[in-house]
Amino acid sequence: MDLTVTFLGTGASAPSARRSTAAVLVARAGVKMLFDCGEGTQRQMQRSLGLTQVDEIYLTHFHADHVLGLPGLLKTYDLTDREAPLAIYGPPGLEELFRVFRPLLGRLGYELELIELRAEDYSEHDGFEVEAFAVEHRSSRALGYAIVEDERPGRFDPAAAKAAGVPEGPAFAALQRGEEVEGNAGTVAPEQVMGPDRPGRTVVLTGDTAPSPATVAAAADAELLIHDAAFIEEDSARAAETGHSTIRQAAGVAAEAHVKLLALVHISSRYHVGACLEEARAVFEPAIAPRDFDQVVIPLPERGEPQLIPNGAREPRNEGDSAT
Amino acid sequence: MDLTVTFLGTGASAPSARRSTAAVLVARAGVKMLFDCGEGTQRQMQRSLGLTQVDEIYLTHFHADHVLGLPGLLKTYDLTDREAPLAIYGPPGLEELFRVFRPLLGRLGYELELIELRAEDYSEHDGFEVEAFAVEHRSSRALGYAIVEDERPGRFDPAAAKAAGVPEGPAFAALQRGEEVEGNAGTVAPEQVMGPDRPGRTVVLTGDTAPSPATVAAAADAELLIHDAAFIEEDSARAAETGHSTIRQAAGVAAEAHVKLLALVHISSRYHVGACLEEARAVFEPAIAPRDFDQVVIPLPERGEPQLIPNGAREPRNEGDSAT
Repeated sequence: MDLTVTFLGTGASAPSARRSTAAVLVARAGVKMLFDCGEGTQRQMQRSLGLTQVDEIYLTHFHADHVLGLPGLLKTYDLTDREAPLAIYGPPGLEELFRVFRPLLGRLGYELELIELRAEDYSEHDGFEVEAFAVEHRSSRALGYAIVEDERPGRFDPAAAKAAGVPEGPAFAALQRGEEVEGNAGTVAPEQVMGPDRPGRTVVLTGDTAPSPATVAAAADAELLIHDAAFIEEDSARAAETGHSTIRQAAGVAAEAHVKLLALVHISSRYHVGACLEEARAVFEPAIAPRDFDQVVIPLPERGEPQLIPNGAREPRNEGDSAT
Repeated sequence: MDLTVTFLGTGASAPSARRSTAAVLVARAGVKMLFDCGEGTQRQMQRSLGLTQVDEIYLTHFHADHVLGLPGLLKTYDLTDREAPLAIYGPPGLEELFRVFRPLLGRLGYELELIELRAEDYSEHDGFEVEAFAVEHRSSRALGYAIVEDERPGRFDPAAAKAAGVPEGPAFAALQRGEEVEGNAGTVAPEQVMGPDRPGRTVVLTGDTAPSPATVAAAADAELLIHDAAFIEEDSARAAETGHSTIRQAAGVAAEAHVKLLALVHISSRYHVGACLEEARAVFEPAIAPRDFDQVVIPLPERGEPQLIPNGAREPRNEGDSAT
């Protein structure tokens, strides 16, 4: 069961030559979910995976650098004859945002479904949920999201089943489906021959936020935590003022939550990314600062650790990220 | 006196991996003007010239692919502490567009000046004007723009001035400023010693339009005509229906107007650009189909022809422009 995270935009409030504004695509077994949609997200898709027909879009909050790519993406879906409905989730204010966007969108040839979420609301899927949790970013309504897979049944122990007198064949399958069966020595319950339930995988995205206990709770033992890391420690006052986290704070959350991998995003383009990673790794490892187009592939827990696939953004023609 | 055109977005209504939506930057002697501002224009700047603090923005019309980059660019100007006011020109409806954008912009630390133009209105500059002309694109209010330099004084003929008895020195300068001077043989008027006025340069951008006599008039003898060329001839019915031009129609306008160089933009990504250029060149030469980041440098007419500087967009990592 594949679970892949593609970083389409890893930049801060203003994009740079190397980094577009916020957008992360999560694909799980054919379900494609976009988290935030900064300006240029459709072209970030075209430049990496191709224009991706996502099933759902989740917005963490409505600051411009997280939503300005929506009208263009929705228009392009229309121009490419999309017919499948598109569900868009976000905190209260979502409908108001779309009243603003409406004149820019014109008539679309597919249905938009807008769903306002509050903390602890979730959207159900086959095999996983996307759970909203409250984060702390000026707007009190900003949300983070946790993609939480259902627990999987434990491992079936064929030797134990045989020892309990169950004949190999259909009865083995019934036990694995959770049904009792009759063996040679009486009734056998699944729990006698199945190991303990195995946890699913969890991916957590904070959007923009100061460090928060709600994030620690949502990210407990997660495979991947994608956390706001806008500032270095030296600028912690500015982080507090603007409702962002320092890199060290993000690493602290990762450490408290015992995540398997921390991905730092929204790093201000004024900093050197290598130095930022050092700051994080002094507190928590493993930590990465993905570039645009990088991916993280997350195997089932018993099959290994999350892996960074560095598809990274090629060097821009102009080296300078800064204004001229 | 430099005059340089940078193609920041040469794509059609939907961008592609190679081509962003509409945006052209024209720089003349320190004045920087942006024509249209499709989604992602700020990053197209960052990926080529660096974030450019333009003085003026001209919108041809308000379809999404021509304006969706505005909120992000204006926000980023604010984040980079812009203080200089920014003038934005467009057809009637401009103020309404900004009522839509306003909630996305928040408070900006510099002044926006919105100026609605009608056909034949113009904005005056030191040494040139930007003149609006009516084009034909569904919305009856769409405008094209002509950047028209003032005529320059003719060439001074020192031999003629000496022959008329004018002493070399301050009197020579006075004649070139257009003043009469006293020579040894009586009053000498400037026109006796100056050649005929020399024309300035003209650059014309149509935005989206069907072929139109107004464009032919505006582009008469222009150095550069940047013309909508959305469709090949085979799809001329679709061009007519959508208020766009075929490549052959664009070339026909260039031929009638006797322009020095035709640049085709807004070519649908479904076509092969080489074949499009052949279609154009059967009717008019020289014709180019600039890539994103290409530039055209326009020397003074007596110093040569407009030159294409192919800075062109590098190949995208994913070859496919199409949806997947």
